[in-house]
Amino acid sequence: MFEDYIYLDNASMTRLDERVFEKMKPYFFDTYALPTSESGYSMGVEAKEVLEKSRENIAKILGAESSEFIFTSGFTESSNIALKGVVGALKRKGSHIILSKIEDYSVLNTAKALEKEGFKVTYLDVDNTGRVDPEVLKDSITSKTILVSIQHANQEIGTIQNIKAIGELCQEKEVIFHTDATHSFKRIPLDVKKIPVDLITMSAHTIHGPSGIGGLYIRKGTPLKKWMDGGFQEFNRRAGLENIPGAVGFAKAAHLVTVEENQALKKMRDHLMDRILSEVPQSILNGHKTNRTPQNVNITFEFVEGESITLHLDMRGFAVSTGSACFSRSLDPSHVILGIGGDHERAHGSVRFTLSRFTTMDDVNRAADAVASVVENLRKISPLG
Amino acid sequence: MFEDYIYLDNASMTRLDERVFEKMKPYFFDTYALPTSESGYSMGVEAKEVLEKSRENIAKILGAESSEFIFTSGFTESSNIALKGVVGALKRKGSHIILSKIEDYSVLNTAKALEKEGFKVTYLDVDNTGRVDPEVLKDSITSKTILVSIQHANQEIGTIQNIKAIGELCQEKEVIFHTDATHSFKRIPLDVKKIPVDLITMSAHTIHGPSGIGGLYIRKGTPLKKWMDGGFQEFNRRAGLENIPGAVGFAKAAHLVTVEENQALKKMRDHLMDRILSEVPQSILNGHKTNRTPQNVNITFEFVEGESITLHLDMRGFAVSTGSACFSRSLDPSHVILGIGGDHERAHGSVRFTLSRFTTMDDVNRAADAVASVVENLRKISPLG
Repeated sequence: MFEDYIYLDNASMTRLDERVFEKMKPYFFDTYALPTSESGYSMGVEAKEVLEKSRENIAKILGAESSEFIFTSGFTESSNIALKGVVGALKRKGSHIILSKIEDYSVLNTAKALEKEGFKVTYLDVDNTGRVDPEVLKDSITSKTILVSIQHANQEIGTIQNIKAIGELCQEKEVIFHTDATHSFKRIPLDVKKIPVDLITMSAHTIHGPSGIGGLYIRKGTPLKKWMDGGFQEFNRRAGLENIPGAVGFAKAAHLVTVEENQALKKMRDHLMDRILSEVPQSILNGHKTNRTPQNVNITFEFVEGESITLHLDMRGFAVSTGSACFSRSLDPSHVILGIGGDHERAHGSVRFTLSRFTTMDDVNRAADAVASVVENLRKISPLG
Repeated sequence: MFEDYIYLDNASMTRLDERVFEKMKPYFFDTYALPTSESGYSMGVEAKEVLEKSRENIAKILGAESSEFIFTSGFTESSNIALKGVVGALKRKGSHIILSKIEDYSVLNTAKALEKEGFKVTYLDVDNTGRVDPEVLKDSITSKTILVSIQHANQEIGTIQNIKAIGELCQEKEVIFHTDATHSFKRIPLDVKKIPVDLITMSAHTIHGPSGIGGLYIRKGTPLKKWMDGGFQEFNRRAGLENIPGAVGFAKAAHLVTVEENQALKKMRDHLMDRILSEVPQSILNGHKTNRTPQNVNITFEFVEGESITLHLDMRGFAVSTGSACFSRSLDPSHVILGIGGDHERAHGSVRFTLSRFTTMDDVNRAADAVASVVENLRKISPLG
C-alpha cells in the first residue's frame, strides 16, 4: 500500500532492518524461555546467555562494562529512571536540577513533574543553533544542584551539544550528568572513557531496531534509586521480564550502523539542505549547518504552515514532519524552535526531514523538487504572505 | 536444538503463537510509522488506526470502553503505574494500602518501596489454599485506606481470588481496587461491568503474545497520577512511543485464547495432578484442587529439593520450575508457599508445571512418568529422607 511512498519522517528510522528481524526471530519461537539462574534448565540458560551477550555488545560500543548497561522499554523509560532515580537517591543532598530548554519531552516533562514535587529546575537557554554554553551552565550550578540533564543531540534540529565540556564541568562540580542520546547513539561517537557522563539514554527505534526496547548506561557508582519495582532483573536496577527478542534486536541494530553509513547520510543531508536553501526563497535552516546529526534536516519556510506542507507532501508521496512528531499534539508550536529564538510563525512553518539507511540520493532529489513546488504553490494561496 | 524438549515451565506460555507473529509482521516492515494526529501523513494515520483497533479489541474482552485501556511495557510496569499512580493521586486522603501476602513481586515490592516512603502496608494472610477472606479484608480497611491490591490468580499456585466479593467491599468502602490479572487474563472471565474493579494489570506474555507489551485497565474516573512522564501518548496516562507490533500482537494473542482451549487445559491439569498425587508418595498439592487457573499445577515433593527435581527433569528433556521463576534468586524459599502455611522444606520442594496451547496429553503423561521416576531416585539418595 505504501510502496512508492518515501519516508523522510522519523518513521524512516523506525523501519526494522530485515537483518535485525532475522536475528530476533529464533527468540520468538525457539529460544523463548525466561532467563533463569544458572541452576535453571537449558533453554533458560541459553536465553540468559544471549541477553548478556547483547548487553555486552551494546556496552562495548560505549566503552562501558556490561554491568553498566541495562535494558529498558525505550528512551522515555530510560530518562524517567535516570532523572527520578538520581533525585530519589540524592534528595537529601539537594533539590536543584538543570536541563536545556530544548530537551525532548521524556526529559522535559519528567523534570516538570519533579518540579511539582518541590524540586527546583533551571531550564538553560541555548544559542540560535541550539547549543548550551558550558559557561552559562557553570554559573547555574549551585551547592544544591544534584543533576544536570543535557541531551547529546536534539530530536528536532539535530544540534549536537558539547557534552565533553559539560561532562567535565559536572565532574569538577561533583554533579551527576545525564545525557539523552536517543538521536545520536551510533550516529555520533560517545565513549564513556573519554567523556565523563554518568547516565546515557538510548533507544533501538532510531537505528532500525525494534519498538519497545531501549537502554540506559549507568556509570559504576552512580547513586540511583530503583524506579520500576518488582523482580530483581537487570542487576536489580529495573524490574520486569526480560524482552529477549528486543534485546537481541537492539544489539544487532547497533552493530549494523557503520561509519560509512553515517558518512552517506551526511552527504545526503548536506545535499538536501543545500538544494532547499538555495532553491526555495525565504527558507531558513533550523539548527547548525555542520554540527548536527547525520540524519537530520530542519527548515522553516516563511509564510507557510508546516502542517500544510506535510499534508501536501503526503499527497505527493512523501512523509515529513512538523513540530515534534513524538507526540500527538502537533498544533502546539515546537518548543525547540522557540528555544533557538524562533517565533510562533517560524515554529509553525518548520519541517523536519529524517534520513535513514533506506534513503537514497534519488529520494532526496525528488523530495527537494516536491518541497520547492509545494511551498511555491502554498505561498500563492497563503494568507500569511 | 530444543526440539524434543517439553516445556512445562512458564516459558510454555511465552512461546509466541505463529498466528500472532504473522499478524505483527506487517507492522515491523510495512506500516512502521509512529501514530500521529489526524493531520499526519497516511501511514501514521494507519498506525494510529491499528493501535486503536487493538486497544478496542482488548477493552471489549473486559467489557470496558477503549478509553479505559492503556498499553504498557508489561505487567511489572502496569502494576507500578497502578499502585504508584493511585497513591500519588490520593496521598492527601490517606496513606494505607492493603495487599495479600502472596502477590507477585511487581505488586509486593512496589508496595515495599512505598512503605519506605512512609505509606503503611497491610499484608493480608491467606488460607491454606491461598485465598484472602473478604471478612478479614473488611476488618483491615480503615478511614486511611486508599488502595487494595489483590491478585486475580496466583503466579505460582494458580489460586483464584474472590475478586467479586473483594471488589464489592472496596466499592462499599470507597477504596480503589487493583487486581493483577497477569496469570488469569483470558483464562478466567473478568467483566468490569459485573465486577467492580478499578484497575487491572495484564500481560501478553502469558497468552503466547510478544514480550515487552502489557496493559492496564483504568476504570473511568479512577484517580491516577501519571507515572511515566514524557509525551502525551495513551490518553496522556503513559508516555513513551507506541509499540505497534506489540499492541497488534497482544490483541491477536488475546483473541486466540478460546473457551475450548481453557477446557482442554483444565483437563490436562487435572490429569497431571491426579496422576502425580496418586502415583508419587508424599506429594502435596499447593493451592486449591479446582479453584485454580487452567494452566497451573504446583506440587511439593517431601524430602526432595525442587532444584534437584528441576535439574533432573531438565536432563530428561522437561522444563519445570521451582519457587518463583519470575526472577533470578530462586534459592530463596517461595513467599507464596510460605504464605499458605508451608515451611521452608515445603517451599524448597515445590515444583510448578505450567500448561499451554502447545502442551499435549501425551506430554502430560510423559512428564508424570518422569516426575515419578526422578522423585523416587532422588529420595533414594536424599539426606532429607
